[in-house]
Amino acid sequence: MQFHLNGFRPGDPTIASAEAALPPRAPDRPLPAEVDVLIVGAGPTGLTLAAQLARIGGVTVCVAEQKDGPLLVGQADGIACRTMEMFGAFGFADDIAREAYHVNETVFWKPDPDAPGRIRRSGRIQDVEDGLSEHPHVILNQARVHDRFLQVMQRSASTLAPDYGRRLVDLRLPVGDEPAVARFERVGDESAAGATETVRARYVVGCDGARSAVRGFMGRTLAGDAANQSWGVMDVLAVTDFPDIRFKAVVHSASAGNLLVIPREGGYLFRLYIELDELDADERVANRNITVDRLIDAARHILSPYTLDVKEVAWWSVYEIGQRLCDRYDDLEADDDVREPRVFIAGDACHTHSPKAGQGMNVSMRDGFNLGWKLAAVLRGRARPDVLRTYSAERHAVAKRLIDFDREFAAMFSANPRTEDDPDGVDPAEFQRYFQQHGRFTAGTETRYAPSLLVGDGTFQHLAKGFEIGTRFHSAPVRRVADALAMHLGHVVEADGRWRLFVFADEAAPDAPGSALATLCERLTTDARSPLVRSTRDGEDIDAVVDVRAIVQQRHDEVTIPEMPPLLRPAKGRYGLLDHEKVFCPDPRTGGDVFDLRGIDRTTGAMVVVRPDQHVAHVLPLDGFDALADFFAGFLLPVR
Amino acid sequence: MQFHLNGFRPGDPTIASAEAALPPRAPDRPLPAEVDVLIVGAGPTGLTLAAQLARIGGVTVCVAEQKDGPLLVGQADGIACRTMEMFGAFGFADDIAREAYHVNETVFWKPDPDAPGRIRRSGRIQDVEDGLSEHPHVILNQARVHDRFLQVMQRSASTLAPDYGRRLVDLRLPVGDEPAVARFERVGDESAAGATETVRARYVVGCDGARSAVRGFMGRTLAGDAANQSWGVMDVLAVTDFPDIRFKAVVHSASAGNLLVIPREGGYLFRLYIELDELDADERVANRNITVDRLIDAARHILSPYTLDVKEVAWWSVYEIGQRLCDRYDDLEADDDVREPRVFIAGDACHTHSPKAGQGMNVSMRDGFNLGWKLAAVLRGRARPDVLRTYSAERHAVAKRLIDFDREFAAMFSANPRTEDDPDGVDPAEFQRYFQQHGRFTAGTETRYAPSLLVGDGTFQHLAKGFEIGTRFHSAPVRRVADALAMHLGHVVEADGRWRLFVFADEAAPDAPGSALATLCERLTTDARSPLVRSTRDGEDIDAVVDVRAIVQQRHDEVTIPEMPPLLRPAKGRYGLLDHEKVFCPDPRTGGDVFDLRGIDRTTGAMVVVRPDQHVAHVLPLDGFDALADFFAGFLLPVR
Repeated sequence: MQFHLNGFRPGDPTIASAEAALPPRAPDRPLPAEVDVLIVGAGPTGLTLAAQLARIGGVTVCVAEQKDGPLLVGQADGIACRTMEMFGAFGFADDIAREAYHVNETVFWKPDPDAPGRIRRSGRIQDVEDGLSEHPHVILNQARVHDRFLQVMQRSASTLAPDYGRRLVDLRLPVGDEPAVARFERVGDESAAGATETVRARYVVGCDGARSAVRGFMGRTLAGDAANQSWGVMDVLAVTDFPDIRFKAVVHSASAGNLLVIPREGGYLFRLYIELDELDADERVANRNITVDRLIDAARHILSPYTLDVKEVAWWSVYEIGQRLCDRYDDLEADDDVREPRVFIAGDACHTHSPKAGQGMNVSMRDGFNLGWKLAAVLRGRARPDVLRTYSAERHAVAKRLIDFDREFAAMFSANPRTEDDPDGVDPAEFQRYFQQHGRFTAGTETRYAPSLLVGDGTFQHLAKGFEIGTRFHSAPVRRVADALAMHLGHVVEADGRWRLFVFADEAAPDAPGSALATLCERLTTDARSPLVRSTRDGEDIDAVVDVRAIVQQRHDEVTIPEMPPLLRPAKGRYGLLDHEKVFCPDPRTGGDVFDLRGIDRTTGAMVVVRPDQHVAHVLPLDGFDALADFFAGFLLPVR
Repeated sequence: MQFHLNGFRPGDPTIASAEAALPPRAPDRPLPAEVDVLIVGAGPTGLTLAAQLARIGGVTVCVAEQKDGPLLVGQADGIACRTMEMFGAFGFADDIAREAYHVNETVFWKPDPDAPGRIRRSGRIQDVEDGLSEHPHVILNQARVHDRFLQVMQRSASTLAPDYGRRLVDLRLPVGDEPAVARFERVGDESAAGATETVRARYVVGCDGARSAVRGFMGRTLAGDAANQSWGVMDVLAVTDFPDIRFKAVVHSASAGNLLVIPREGGYLFRLYIELDELDADERVANRNITVDRLIDAARHILSPYTLDVKEVAWWSVYEIGQRLCDRYDDLEADDDVREPRVFIAGDACHTHSPKAGQGMNVSMRDGFNLGWKLAAVLRGRARPDVLRTYSAERHAVAKRLIDFDREFAAMFSANPRTEDDPDGVDPAEFQRYFQQHGRFTAGTETRYAPSLLVGDGTFQHLAKGFEIGTRFHSAPVRRVADALAMHLGHVVEADGRWRLFVFADEAAPDAPGSALATLCERLTTDARSPLVRSTRDGEDIDAVVDVRAIVQQRHDEVTIPEMPPLLRPAKGRYGLLDHEKVFCPDPRTGGDVFDLRGIDRTTGAMVVVRPDQHVAHVLPLDGFDALADFFAGFLLPVR
């Protein structure tokens, strides 16, 4: 899809009229007096959380945003594979992929040893290793990601939309069972300016950025390094003969500095990150009066001998690198194991770092994804409030690792190339190796949540080696038995708040007397300790809380749905119609047999429990019903 | 995507609120007094045509529809691979694929020889042969196809929308240079009922169905067979233990009749076509008073021993099979080689037949696709009016073949299974073979337009055997050189009215002195006879009329864009930005090398000319510049 040829224009590029392309603004209306969840901030973190709550439903939500309308031009643009998997759960990964630039390879340029002052290509690597994810690593203006989340919210039963022009001026933390009380001031709209509104909320989540007001009212701070390296960034429409202008390119020049090329959506726009001088201690980049012309000039020098003729600057900024982290994401004290957390922060409110590895927006959105289903589960009475304690623990560990990585990555990036004169520099080949080694980390697929009440131990990990407990469910190609559809198994995990139990069957025919699959399904359906029996309410479909899917070892033309255990062809809805989409089988035609790809023990089979945020919670043997029941009883509430 | 569990609901299934899911109705406004193109009928044919004209732009259009709003429940549901390719050109193939049922396999059932009165599975075939198309064969309620075309129209610069509630009551055919004059009566809206409006139009297209009023005013008729076989069709939500209810299934019973199962979108709904009794001569099915209960009863008998418990009938109908065809699709007499055609008919107005091979809507939409770009090219002054004469010739031949096929297919379908008692019956295995043999025909990929001023001769077909002149461009996987994106070459052919010239390069490096690619590009850029020079207006981009794309034989990491001939990195738009998306190379990783897959001569290379409707117009050698110039000069008008 090509666009922005005649200048950058915000909004949906498939709409010809510039006006109509802009995202719709929600009607101006008073804030609700009382909600289950108050989200402060409608950036990527707040919108992920809001979309998740809207998608699950049954929870009242208010999203209050200080800006006076939807974002039109964003700063962030990198979307990691893991984030695309999350977008897939919300149903818009394909839309993003269609519009975005795809990072297929990264190229590396270094000073030409034969010609000082010139650069030449020194390396080229595949950006995402084969098989890491079925989704690509892409680049797209953050505003378009917002638009997709806003669409999910708008299409939900609650037709949720943010309330813009609201600045948080006071937050009374909740005491006991009382709600938190937030006071907002109207901003932006002159006729209402200064008016205040009060919202009482059971839970409050501060998704309000690096200068988070919610964090302030909680008495928490970001702690970390002082920054003394300044960078410039600009999105430009330009003519250049640099051969790799449509590749992500890392350019180290001999003495003019370093630069990163990020091609952008539409085929013409690209982003340049440009290294500026080191700052003195206590100096702020804002005081340098850096102009966009200076950025362009620096880029020209670094790219020499190639030309750069900038025609339009769509957006630019300068910033300092700093790595800062909040030590806790909720309102509990470290030694408090009694109270339930009621106020949270997420995203930039918790962690800030350099943008060059493209991590910020990704990690922030995944903060929101981690918290959303937990809040919904507690508010809907499905799960113990305890599950909310795992949010800070799980996400703080992720940010800690990111901060450490970013410190190292940024230092290597900013270093001069190693030469005889500068033996402390970094060899571009070394940087390339580092970049490649951390591919899974930057793709976001390496995140592993530690054992907790939501993540089991590894006793039976060997039964399904490729579904590592604590990591995200690594999707694999399968066929759906009922209609022979070739598809990805992981795509059944939608962002609907439900747990999934993937049962990889033993070798027996599903209807054979000794089939471990059939025996397990029988217990799941009838045993009072089964999470399906224990936690599904009267009138709900049997898969409302835990959605059981089976993967049999037979070919799709060797089995049929009527011979499956009843749990795998459940009668649902007002008519009792049979759901035919619960059973899958390997599809060696399209990328390998899922049993082989993910190291499933074919003799015993395995159960793989997947959380609503796509992370593997547990691996158990097919005869592990008791352990399964115990695991779910650890956090799911009984319905009777 | 699963939906319709609790009953059929029209509209967009991704929107939770039933009201909001319905397609928006255009504002009620008077018809325009004068337009370039008047389209009568907003069915699939009229909407394809309207979307094509809106997408190309520069043409005023009125779409007048008798119904009082957008379709909510349609009759047609089959979408062939070739139609999906066309949807791809409009940008919504992926959206359709996401929502639709995918026909992966077709299964065949026949009477169980061991148990009279019972059926058993007799065969199973892959529905679409490997490599036939990169798009699937899918099934989706026609109304949702309408919605996508309406969206394309609405998103175009003209924000085109149909005007509903208008019945054509008079059409004065155009005389000489005068416009046609159409008179419409308001229907549906009581307050306006009886009011009439007049539209003058340079061209009129009747997309108004089997009882076309436009056809009547033209004095043409549908001619063909009387029908004496009646069928029932119903879309149901039902519970059954028939094992193949989520497969397309052809069921021949011993004595209860025949039936066709078409699974539908959403995972629960399915359609049944049920054979009823033969009609007497002159008897009409409407006089039989057939009820839906009778259809359900017949289906139960045919499916015995399997059960069928119908919970909701979303839609049902009875119809007679008949094959009828109009002998000409425009207002010219057969021997008129002077006048240009000004009034056309398309879709069901030209051809009707049985629905069971799922062809009607597909062939009709492709009528519209054939005509749209030709009308736009003539109205925008790019092409001679002569090109409009090819519409009737090309599409009548397609319908003739369809009618012949349908007669044979319907007869075989309706025949009893061959037994000792009924030696004139058709062996189900024979039907299965026939079905399989005609797979390319029903997929729509077999259509081949005969040589004309828009289709060249086959002198150089051997240089690119897999791009058969007259047939649709058979897409193949490639990589884009500038950013290493793995993609489908055919997806660069958008429904924007432009011609494509795919230049498959010789083996030389693109910047080598003897490169045939470079030599050709040079002539295309500078020679006064080049269609690019001759037919591109001042101020237009060089690819505005003919879009040149090259496929080099080198790997993407062996060449760069700056070393390409300037035509393959053209400066475009107000800034003169370089278009980096003109050059491709083979991508053996994902499905084969395009030169091998499509039989391109690697020594000489080849030019493949592709029409705006995706059909291959010509194959020429790289040194065939003169023949290329002559071909385009045959219909493109010079700009100076």
